[in-house]
Amino acid sequence: MFNRIKRVIIGKPLKNEAIHGQKYSVVWGLPILASDAISSIAYASEEILLVLVPAVGVLAYGELTYISGAIIGLLLILTFSYRQTIQAYPNGGGAYIVATDNLGTIAGITAGASLSVDYILTVAVSISSGTAAITSAFPRLLPFTVPICLLILLLVMFGNLRGIRESSRMFSLPTYAFIFAILAMIVTGVVEHFMGVHPSAVSVGVSAGVLKTGGEVSLLLLLSAFSNGCAALTGVEAVSNAIPNFREPQIKNAKTVLLLLSFFVLLLFGGTSLLANLYHVVPGQDKTVLSQIAASIFGHSFMFYFIQVTTTVILAMAANTSYSDFPLLVSLMARDGYAPRQLSQRGDRLSFSNGILMLSAVAGLLIIIFRGSTSALIPLYAIGVFISFSLSQFGMFKRWVTKRGEHWVHKALVNGLGAFVTTVVVMIIAVTKFRHGAWIVIIVIPLLIILMLKVKSHYQSVARQLRLEPHELTSIDIEKDLYRNRVIVPVESINRASIRALRYARTISEHVVAFNVSINEEDSRKVAERYSLIKTDIPLIVRYSPFRKIAAPLLEFVESEEYDRRKGDIITVIIPQFEVRKWWHNLLHNHSASAIERQLLKHKHIVVATMPLQLRNEDLLLKAERKVELK
Amino acid sequence: MFNRIKRVIIGKPLKNEAIHGQKYSVVWGLPILASDAISSIAYASEEILLVLVPAVGVLAYGELTYISGAIIGLLLILTFSYRQTIQAYPNGGGAYIVATDNLGTIAGITAGASLSVDYILTVAVSISSGTAAITSAFPRLLPFTVPICLLILLLVMFGNLRGIRESSRMFSLPTYAFIFAILAMIVTGVVEHFMGVHPSAVSVGVSAGVLKTGGEVSLLLLLSAFSNGCAALTGVEAVSNAIPNFREPQIKNAKTVLLLLSFFVLLLFGGTSLLANLYHVVPGQDKTVLSQIAASIFGHSFMFYFIQVTTTVILAMAANTSYSDFPLLVSLMARDGYAPRQLSQRGDRLSFSNGILMLSAVAGLLIIIFRGSTSALIPLYAIGVFISFSLSQFGMFKRWVTKRGEHWVHKALVNGLGAFVTTVVVMIIAVTKFRHGAWIVIIVIPLLIILMLKVKSHYQSVARQLRLEPHELTSIDIEKDLYRNRVIVPVESINRASIRALRYARTISEHVVAFNVSINEEDSRKVAERYSLIKTDIPLIVRYSPFRKIAAPLLEFVESEEYDRRKGDIITVIIPQFEVRKWWHNLLHNHSASAIERQLLKHKHIVVATMPLQLRNEDLLLKAERKVELK
Repeated sequence: MFNRIKRVIIGKPLKNEAIHGQKYSVVWGLPILASDAISSIAYASEEILLVLVPAVGVLAYGELTYISGAIIGLLLILTFSYRQTIQAYPNGGGAYIVATDNLGTIAGITAGASLSVDYILTVAVSISSGTAAITSAFPRLLPFTVPICLLILLLVMFGNLRGIRESSRMFSLPTYAFIFAILAMIVTGVVEHFMGVHPSAVSVGVSAGVLKTGGEVSLLLLLSAFSNGCAALTGVEAVSNAIPNFREPQIKNAKTVLLLLSFFVLLLFGGTSLLANLYHVVPGQDKTVLSQIAASIFGHSFMFYFIQVTTTVILAMAANTSYSDFPLLVSLMARDGYAPRQLSQRGDRLSFSNGILMLSAVAGLLIIIFRGSTSALIPLYAIGVFISFSLSQFGMFKRWVTKRGEHWVHKALVNGLGAFVTTVVVMIIAVTKFRHGAWIVIIVIPLLIILMLKVKSHYQSVARQLRLEPHELTSIDIEKDLYRNRVIVPVESINRASIRALRYARTISEHVVAFNVSINEEDSRKVAERYSLIKTDIPLIVRYSPFRKIAAPLLEFVESEEYDRRKGDIITVIIPQFEVRKWWHNLLHNHSASAIERQLLKHKHIVVATMPLQLRNEDLLLKAERKVELK
Repeated sequence: MFNRIKRVIIGKPLKNEAIHGQKYSVVWGLPILASDAISSIAYASEEILLVLVPAVGVLAYGELTYISGAIIGLLLILTFSYRQTIQAYPNGGGAYIVATDNLGTIAGITAGASLSVDYILTVAVSISSGTAAITSAFPRLLPFTVPICLLILLLVMFGNLRGIRESSRMFSLPTYAFIFAILAMIVTGVVEHFMGVHPSAVSVGVSAGVLKTGGEVSLLLLLSAFSNGCAALTGVEAVSNAIPNFREPQIKNAKTVLLLLSFFVLLLFGGTSLLANLYHVVPGQDKTVLSQIAASIFGHSFMFYFIQVTTTVILAMAANTSYSDFPLLVSLMARDGYAPRQLSQRGDRLSFSNGILMLSAVAGLLIIIFRGSTSALIPLYAIGVFISFSLSQFGMFKRWVTKRGEHWVHKALVNGLGAFVTTVVVMIIAVTKFRHGAWIVIIVIPLLIILMLKVKSHYQSVARQLRLEPHELTSIDIEKDLYRNRVIVPVESINRASIRALRYARTISEHVVAFNVSINEEDSRKVAERYSLIKTDIPLIVRYSPFRKIAAPLLEFVESEEYDRRKGDIITVIIPQFEVRKWWHNLLHNHSASAIERQLLKHKHIVVATMPLQLRNEDLLLKAERKVELK
C-alpha cells in the first residue's frame, strides 16, 4: 500500500547502471546550476533598498548603483577564481574537497559545515522569495504564505527524489523563459524611461510621504546594504561542486556553464538595479520590488503575470540547485565518516534520498519559524557561503604556492585576491548582520564542526574494533576453537509454536533449556503439567516474576550459578513471532517480543533467534479443515 | 532517561502481591464510585433548562420540577434493580458480564460496547463541566477552556497510572466537601428564599428581556429535556461493576455504597432543581446554572469559590470513576478475546495502563473536537449507558425466570420493571437527540460490535492453529525427526563482526554459506580476496544487486535450484547488530538490519538470528590500547 503510493510519486527503482545516463549537458546543466545565482536578482536589489530607503530615502537609489557595481566586481573575481578550481579539480572541486585537500581536515569540515548551512538557507530563501512573487501578483494569497512555501518545497523534494535528469528537464525551460522575460523588461523599461513614457516614480513616492528626501549615508549603512546584496553571489560555487554530474568533456562544459552563469547574473542584476534606480521603486512589505517594476512597465498585462510566474519557477529551481549539491556534499562527508553513513547511500532512483529528506526537513522548519519572510532569512544567508568561498580560495592559493607548476604566480594571485576579498566580506557580514540573525549561523557552524568530529571519532572507534589486518586473517581458522552454543527457549504455554521452537533449538544445540516465566501460579502449573506429557530430555525451568517482566528473570537465570555457562559460550534465545496477514492484526499481538529482544541483546553473549510463525487468513481457515501444519 | 521520568511520575513498579492491598472500604469507595452520579448535579438541571427556557420561558421552572421527579423515580427503580445484581454477581456484575451470562455473546458485547462509549463520554463530559465551573468563577480563563480540560485529563490519567488506592485517597476528601457545600447551599437557599431575603430572579430575568413569559409546552420538548436530564443517572452502574475492588465483606460494602450513592443523588439533584426553580436562574453560555445559584445565595464570598472548586474536583473524580471502570471492562473483554490482549495486562503499578492510556486518548480527542462544551457532548452521553442498563436488566429478568429460586417472582418483577423503563428511555433519547449527536453513538456501537467479533475470530483462528490436545502432546518426541538446519551469513566485508558470525554459524550447523550482496564490483572483489585468506570450508556466494537491495537477492538465492534445500529444512540467517553505548550513536548505523529482518521473516522457513556487537565507548578507547577482543 505505502509502496504503491511511493512508486507513483517517486517512480520505479533504477538499476545501478542507470547512473551514467543521468548527466548534465551545457544546455540542460546551465538552468539547474545557474538558477541559484540568477534567481537572486528577484530579491538582491530589494534587500539592498530595504536597508537604504528607510534610512536615507531618495538618496538610496544613487547608492544602489555603487553597491551593485561592487557586487558585480566581486562576481568577476569569483568567476576567475572558480575557473581555476574547475581546471584543478575535475572530479568535483567543492570547497569541502579543496579545503580538505590543501588546508587539512578542520578547514575542510568547516567549509563543509558552512556550505551545508548555505544550501539549507538557499532553499528557504529562494522558496520564500518565490512565494513572494506569487503573493505580489495575487495579494489575496498573502495569508497563505507559509502553506504555499511548503507546497513548493514538497514539489521540489519529490522532483528530486525521482532522480537527476528528470528534475533537470522539469525545470529547464522556465529558466530560459525567465532570462528572456527579465531582459525584455530591462530593454522596454530603459527605452520607455528615456522616451519619457513613464513619469519618474520618485515624485509619487515623495508626495505621498513614502520617501524621505534626504538622510545621512553612513559607512555602516552602506556595508549593511552591501551584505544583503551579497546574497546575489551565493550559487556561484555550484558549478565547481557539480563537475562529476556533467557530460564529457566535463571540464570544458563546466567552465562554459560558469562563464554563462556570470554573464547572465551581471546582465540581469545590473539591469534590474538600474530599473529600480530609474523607477525609484519603494520596497514594501506586500509587493516585491521586481513586481513593482514589472507593474510600472507593463501594467497588469500578460507580461506582468509572465514575469511573476517565471520568477517563482526560477526560484524553485534555485532551491533545486541545493537539492543537487547538498546531498552530494553530505554524501562526500558521510563517505569520509563525518556524517551518518546513511547519507552516502543512493535511494531507489539513484538520488541520495536521505540527504534530500534531511534538507527538506530543515529548510521547511526554517520557513515555518521565519514565516516565509525573505528579509528575515537574508541576514543568515550569505555568511555561510562566503566562509566556504574564502576557505576554498585560500586552499587554491596554498596549492599554487606549494605545487607551483605553469603560470603559478598568476594563478596564485587570482585565488589570493579571491581569498582576501571573500574574507573581508565574511567580516563585513558578520559585523553588520550579527544582531539580525548572523549570530545563529556563527553559533551553528562550530556546533556542526564539533558534531562532525564526534561522528568521525565514533566511526573510527568502530572501525578499529572491527578491523582485521591481512596477517590476522590468515591466522583465523573458523573450524577450530568452536565454543559451545547453549539455547534457551522461553515458553509461555505448550502449543505448536513452542514445540516448533524446542525442535529448532534441538537442531542447533545439545544444550537446551525451556524457560517459563510465571506471573501466576496456576498458569505455570498447567505449563509444567502439559510439558511433562512430551517426550524430551530438555529440562523446564520455571521462574516467578513479581514485576510481570520476562527478560529480567531470564537474564538473572543466565547469570546465576545454577546455569552451566563457561567463558566464551554463546547463548541463543529463541523467540517466536507472529507474522500476520492483515496489518491491523499486528495490533492484536503484543509486541513484548521485540521489547524483550532489545533487552536481551544488551547482553554480550546472547544471540536472539526470531522464529516467524505465519498465521493463515482466518476467513479461509474457517472454511478449511482444522488440519494445521505449522511445523 | 525516559525511564527515570516515568518513575517519578508513575512511581516504582509494584509486585503482583501488592494487588490485595489496593481495595475500597465504604468510606474510601463511596467518593470514587458515587462521584460520577453525584457530580452530574453540576450539569443535569442546567441541561434540562437549556432545552426548556429558550422554548417556553418562565414556564420552564414548573416543568423542571416534574422532570426532576421523573428522573428521581428512575433512579429509585435502578437502585433496587442493581442491588439484586450485586447480590447475584459478587465477582462483579457489570452489564457485560450479566448480559453475556444470561442473554449470550452478542448481547454481552453490545453491553460492553455501549458501556465503553459511556465511560469515554463520562470523562469528556465531566471534565468539560468541571472546567466550566472554573471558568464561571474566573471568566478570564474562558478562552483557555480546552487547555484546562486537557490539563485535568492528564492529572487524572497520571493519578490512575500510579494505581488504585493512591488515586482513591487523592480524590476522596473533596467529594465529602462537595456534598457538604451543596447541602449548605440548598439549606441556606431555601431558608433565605422563604424568609424573603432574595428577590425572585424571575422579575429580573423577564424585565431584562432574557425570559419570555410564555410559550407552548409540547410533549417532544419535555421528552427532549428529560433525555438531557438522564445524564444524571449515568454512573449508577459503577458500583455493581466494581465489586471485586471492594474490601470484604464485598457484597455488603457494595450494597451500602449503592444505597448511599442514590440517597445523595436524590438529595442533591432534588435540592438544586428546587433552587433553580426558586431563583429562576437563566442558563447561559458563560456561567453555569450552579455558579449562578451559588452567586445569588452567597455573593462572591468564600463559599461561592469553595463551591466552584469542589465542583471541579468532584467532576474530575467522576472522570476518575471511568478510569476505574473502563480499564477493568476492557480487560474483561480482552480476556474473553474481544479486545486486544494488551488491554488485559497490568502495568508496573498494577493498574491496566493500556486501558488508561486508550481512555485518555479518545476522551481527549472528544474534548478537542467538541471544544470542551458540555452541552454539545450531552446528546451523545446517556444513550450508551441506558442501552447497557437495559441489557443488564433484561439479563437479570431472564435469570430469575429461568433459574427461579427464592422470591423469584418478586425479583423478576423488579428487574423486569427496570428493563422496561430503561428500554423506553433508550428510545426517547434516540428519537429526541438523534439529530444533535446521538446518531454518532448509534453508528459507533454497531461498528465496535463488528470490530470485537473480528478480533475474537482472529484470536480463535490463532488458537486453533496453535492448539495441541493432550493426546497430541503425548505423541510428540522432540528428539526425533529432526530436520536439517542450514545457515546463511550475509557478509558486507570481512571484519571481526563477520568472523564472529561465521564462527557462530559453524557452532549451530554443518551447512553454512557466506553470502555477499554486491553493489559495486570492486567491494565484492575485495571481500572475496580477503575471504580467501581465512581457513574455512564455508563457501562464499556473491550476488550482484542492481537495485541496491539486500534481502531480495538472498531470498532469490534461497529459492533457486542452486541452493540445496530439502522440504522441512529451516534456514537461519545471522545478522550482526551494533549495540552502541550512547543513544545518538544509533543514528550513525543504518538500520537496514531490522528492515532486512522484517522481509526475511515473511519467509516461512527462515529464522533470523540477531547477533549483538557491543561497541565500547570511543572516549575510553582512545585512551586504551588497541587490543580488541570482540570474539
